[in-house]
Amino acid sequence: MKLLHTADWHIGRTLNGYSLLNEQKHAFKQILQLAKDEKVDGIVIAGDIYDRSIPGTDAVTTLDSMLREINLTNKIPIYAISGNHDGAKRLNYGREWMEFTNFHLNTLLDEAFTPLETEDTQIFMLPFFDPMDARVYYKEQGMDEDDVKNIHTINDAMELVLADMYKLFAPNKKHLLITHFSVTPSADQEIELTSETSSKVGGLATLTASQFDKFDYVMLGHIHTRFASPSENIRYSGSPIKFNVKEARLKNKGKGVDIVNITPDKITTEFHEIRPQTDLIVLEETWETLLDPTFYKTQPTKSDWFAITVKNFDRSKHINVRAQLQEIYGTVVELDYENLRKDTTAKIADKNISELSPDSIVEQFFQSVTGNDLSKEQKRLVDSIFVDLRKED
Amino acid sequence: MKLLHTADWHIGRTLNGYSLLNEQKHAFKQILQLAKDEKVDGIVIAGDIYDRSIPGTDAVTTLDSMLREINLTNKIPIYAISGNHDGAKRLNYGREWMEFTNFHLNTLLDEAFTPLETEDTQIFMLPFFDPMDARVYYKEQGMDEDDVKNIHTINDAMELVLADMYKLFAPNKKHLLITHFSVTPSADQEIELTSETSSKVGGLATLTASQFDKFDYVMLGHIHTRFASPSENIRYSGSPIKFNVKEARLKNKGKGVDIVNITPDKITTEFHEIRPQTDLIVLEETWETLLDPTFYKTQPTKSDWFAITVKNFDRSKHINVRAQLQEIYGTVVELDYENLRKDTTAKIADKNISELSPDSIVEQFFQSVTGNDLSKEQKRLVDSIFVDLRKED
Repeated sequence: MKLLHTADWHIGRTLNGYSLLNEQKHAFKQILQLAKDEKVDGIVIAGDIYDRSIPGTDAVTTLDSMLREINLTNKIPIYAISGNHDGAKRLNYGREWMEFTNFHLNTLLDEAFTPLETEDTQIFMLPFFDPMDARVYYKEQGMDEDDVKNIHTINDAMELVLADMYKLFAPNKKHLLITHFSVTPSADQEIELTSETSSKVGGLATLTASQFDKFDYVMLGHIHTRFASPSENIRYSGSPIKFNVKEARLKNKGKGVDIVNITPDKITTEFHEIRPQTDLIVLEETWETLLDPTFYKTQPTKSDWFAITVKNFDRSKHINVRAQLQEIYGTVVELDYENLRKDTTAKIADKNISELSPDSIVEQFFQSVTGNDLSKEQKRLVDSIFVDLRKED
Repeated sequence: MKLLHTADWHIGRTLNGYSLLNEQKHAFKQILQLAKDEKVDGIVIAGDIYDRSIPGTDAVTTLDSMLREINLTNKIPIYAISGNHDGAKRLNYGREWMEFTNFHLNTLLDEAFTPLETEDTQIFMLPFFDPMDARVYYKEQGMDEDDVKNIHTINDAMELVLADMYKLFAPNKKHLLITHFSVTPSADQEIELTSETSSKVGGLATLTASQFDKFDYVMLGHIHTRFASPSENIRYSGSPIKFNVKEARLKNKGKGVDIVNITPDKITTEFHEIRPQTDLIVLEETWETLLDPTFYKTQPTKSDWFAITVKNFDRSKHINVRAQLQEIYGTVVELDYENLRKDTTAKIADKNISELSPDSIVEQFFQSVTGNDLSKEQKRLVDSIFVDLRKED
């Protein structure tokens, strides 16, 4: 059995207001092509399919069309679960119709205890859940009230869930698990690789690899880089694209998917890179370097997106900083100045704010935030607004 | 061919904050039972399936379970379109999977030109659309730019749409249409029956029956009462439940669904009433009558919902009006006083508002809106808030 393992699509996500939908579509095309080339028996999407519980209309129609292309046009089975970003109940809509064409979707805990069976493999699909979901589920299962109340952490809950899964194990089959949690190599290790690892927040406390070792292979979602994989057989595929500057800053930043080959003898993993259409480039340079043609001519093309930090920058000497950089680099999705905070504080502290005229305050605020002076046109506008306000008084 | 015609389910709707979901589930049970008893060949849902474009999670899971019961558990085909309340693109999600089990769903104009064919019948499913949707569609069809710009009203658009449908007519079959618009018997008539008839607002201008007379039968949604049906063969089923006091006030208020029987010779319609679980009772009586046991003992049970207008009411003589009425009648979802506005104006006009103390203003406002005086506890709270505010000054 051959599966393509991907996760954390986050359809509908934006980066500082810039839509990532085109980038996500471009990554999807490569994933679909790979699935066809490799003749996989299914595509695993290990949670965080959408970016939020109530996705925008664009996100809904985009996902619908991706799923149709995989499952209806190309007749490739889908094994999908919801992640912490998905609205589990909303995403559940239509699930039973999708089952007819081998689009398997689990979003609720009680759906996790019916493994999908092939001749030699059992696939367990466990969507993201929190301790409260587990309490509700085990209460419905008739568990003793006191025992239910003892489910406090995700570790408490996972222990019960896994024990119930082990009971369903067919002895002569391989056992696969698809799930969406933070899993570390051992209890005292914390992964510090992506923004998704604020590990103790919101019931997202980490689990440890040893908890899952009865499974032959675990396909994870939640952490956006495959380098966070806790072991050879418990793996994150990572997200197919970079979502933010933090992810773009990582040394090992290649994004992609895994092809997982399951044979009676062994299970092997093969990583396949997904190439960005619009890459996210992080630059941290001085103003002089950034404007130096010998530097910027070696940089990627204008069609990429740039996140730029200007080092040792005296903003009082420059105007239209963003405009100048966009002229050279194209789309600047993030612009920072080293020591920005210090400068700002210093300026405002120069004078008691009540001694400044209202238009001077607007001007200084604008400069602090954007690094640019107000243009003549902007100054005129600010002035006229204050004049109008004065008239109203 | 035998079809059950229903419309305007508005799943997720509330009445003054009271959820109608239980009432909608109760109506649904009767619809499903009728469909089974009558062995229908399909259930037609003629739009406004949800109450709004982004329905709540409860609404999504409720609708999903209703559709599953019809189509998966009982294998009854569904013919559904979106109405003006539905989010057409969102509701479209999953449509192509549902098609496999004869759950036919159209939410976009371009889906309307593929009629469903049986041996002797063509069913056209035309979702609600507005003139702008028609412009987009006909532009994509390669229509001349100037002609596209001439699509101003829903009448302009409908003329084109119907002409395109007529081209698809198979000559020896019956032609049915399912759609969701305001249709009047003739151009100079306006229906004044329900809240859904603010007919010129938002592109919902009315169409006339004669436009549709090439069809053998038209199943409409949009207007919530079957008495608005413009002709014998162009019919509203009405909504299965009452949604508001205006609907409860109508003389002919029985809610239900139609069983439409299509034979080569003729088409007959048979109305079947849907009985409420919690009825909405409108009372307009004097205070004395409302509190008189010989009156209220003849009223429906406490499990119903009451919308009460107290006639000729001098509120200054009463406290806790709502509480007293709830004690007798149960749930009071709406409470009005005759001449409320006049009284309020009179009181406020008594004194220049600037001469009143802040707590007196709150007290008078509370009384105007609720008909009750502030309780001692409430007065104390109001006082202490104003004292705190004064301290902050």
